[in-house]
Amino acid sequence: MESTFVPVVAIVPFAEDGMVSAVAEGGGRVGDPQDADALVWTDPRDPEGLKDTLAASSARWIQLPFAGIESFVAAGVIDPGRTWTCAKGIYGHACAEHALALMLAASRQIHRHARATTWREPGFGSPERRLKGLTVLIVGAGGIGRELIRMLEPIEARAVAVNRSGNEVPGADATHKVGELQEVIGDADFVVVTAALTDETRGLIGRDVLGRMKSDAWIVNVARGGLIETDALVEALSESRIGGAALDVTDPEPLPDGHPLWGLDNALITPHVANTWDMALPELRALVRRNVGLFAGGEELEGLVDPARGY
Amino acid sequence: MESTFVPVVAIVPFAEDGMVSAVAEGGGRVGDPQDADALVWTDPRDPEGLKDTLAASSARWIQLPFAGIESFVAAGVIDPGRTWTCAKGIYGHACAEHALALMLAASRQIHRHARATTWREPGFGSPERRLKGLTVLIVGAGGIGRELIRMLEPIEARAVAVNRSGNEVPGADATHKVGELQEVIGDADFVVVTAALTDETRGLIGRDVLGRMKSDAWIVNVARGGLIETDALVEALSESRIGGAALDVTDPEPLPDGHPLWGLDNALITPHVANTWDMALPELRALVRRNVGLFAGGEELEGLVDPARGY
Repeated sequence: MESTFVPVVAIVPFAEDGMVSAVAEGGGRVGDPQDADALVWTDPRDPEGLKDTLAASSARWIQLPFAGIESFVAAGVIDPGRTWTCAKGIYGHACAEHALALMLAASRQIHRHARATTWREPGFGSPERRLKGLTVLIVGAGGIGRELIRMLEPIEARAVAVNRSGNEVPGADATHKVGELQEVIGDADFVVVTAALTDETRGLIGRDVLGRMKSDAWIVNVARGGLIETDALVEALSESRIGGAALDVTDPEPLPDGHPLWGLDNALITPHVANTWDMALPELRALVRRNVGLFAGGEELEGLVDPARGY
Repeated sequence: MESTFVPVVAIVPFAEDGMVSAVAEGGGRVGDPQDADALVWTDPRDPEGLKDTLAASSARWIQLPFAGIESFVAAGVIDPGRTWTCAKGIYGHACAEHALALMLAASRQIHRHARATTWREPGFGSPERRLKGLTVLIVGAGGIGRELIRMLEPIEARAVAVNRSGNEVPGADATHKVGELQEVIGDADFVVVTAALTDETRGLIGRDVLGRMKSDAWIVNVARGGLIETDALVEALSESRIGGAALDVTDPEPLPDGHPLWGLDNALITPHVANTWDMALPELRALVRRNVGLFAGGEELEGLVDPARGY
């Protein structure tokens, strides 16, 4: 019989039954952080708690629960002496579905119809559009972008990708480097923001970029609020210089009561629900199961974080 | 040189330039109804006008502008001595896109988020769901249903079809006869109504059928309001016996101001915009071009109406 490495995996701060099973199914044994080879951190909102836990743990690998890890980066937790994985990629489908929901809501004017209490608002006309034939620019085409491109295929919308490298994204009609954003944004009917929030991408969609959008184009954000300059966006929306904005994330977030975005006819806000905890949990359990197996076998883990880049 | 039949085609009551070109491109010549071999009727809301026009025309073929022709049937215009075509099938994609928009709006709670003016309504929780993995029952799976099934594929929802014959619908996980509706409706998370309105289908979704739906299932109607019994639906919605209703068509239509459906939290109304005239016109022009060509060549036309069935 082969000798097998059974890693001790701590699940902190809270370990629900499904996650405990996932560790066992992956070939690990659940234990305390002090004795742990690896650590599954389950609270996306508590980077300081993780810092404290790690002070007393020599765990070599840490699994983070969500895809966006900028709060952990900001808290200085991402120690490059350990191996870090996050949940990038695995929530792509859920987030892409929400992006599609927002795009269809915008093009079919559902944000306005939902608020109406009469069949035809006077002067409203028929501004509904089909997504078919429109151009969708996906900014930061990673896991979300790839799934969104698949969903847009039967709808027959044109998908154009923007990423850091400019390396061709499968299924996209064209791929551009992020440096070309200003040149290509003017062709888009929808601009969907799916990028990670880093020092480089903060405020990526500012006054200049918004100013080059078509006057009936919508911006959709399912990534992080900080990628868009909120003041510039409110200005563009108030003056109807763009078609509208559908935002699942905002800056600040939560969006405070009375914020101008709540009162705009051409804005649609959803409260960060593209990938809720209920949606995420089954996917996260499956990832933990796979990664514990890979870790036990000494293989490369899924969702590796590059500490230098911060995602 | 072959002798070619150049049919005279009247375009009434209004002939926009694109339709005139479509007739010419199809190999026809535009003329008056009195001399016409064929007639393209462009006003979906005026069956009586068509009756008057036909009294003075021996046109052998009449092209109707929309897919649902029940008002022409009711007016007794569909004389079986002539050949009738309608626009069935060609608007399937636009209507399927709207059905998808309504389903995603419902599952992602966009109807409620659009009305909110605060990040989290007290007690609202996180009732958002993914479409992935849910079961969508498509009642009357014709042109709209086929396109919707394609759109649901990358979303990974399960599509089940119900039609008159029970003949397998391509891409559906299962197909049932309409007589089995009561047995299969209890498995559905979404019931999408896409059937033609005929004497047989009027009130198809009544109290009994609604009573067998899951308590969190939504009904979506992009076909005709008369397929659903409105009073029974209002009752089911008011008592939260089903999840909700997203309706692009209503009975009565337009839905009058003050109607109970306007006030329900779990209802989403769009004013018959699944296929607006702006969306329809390019498709209708292309159909007229194809059908004029087929008519000139003596071939079978696209979108033939069965006068006995009324669709």
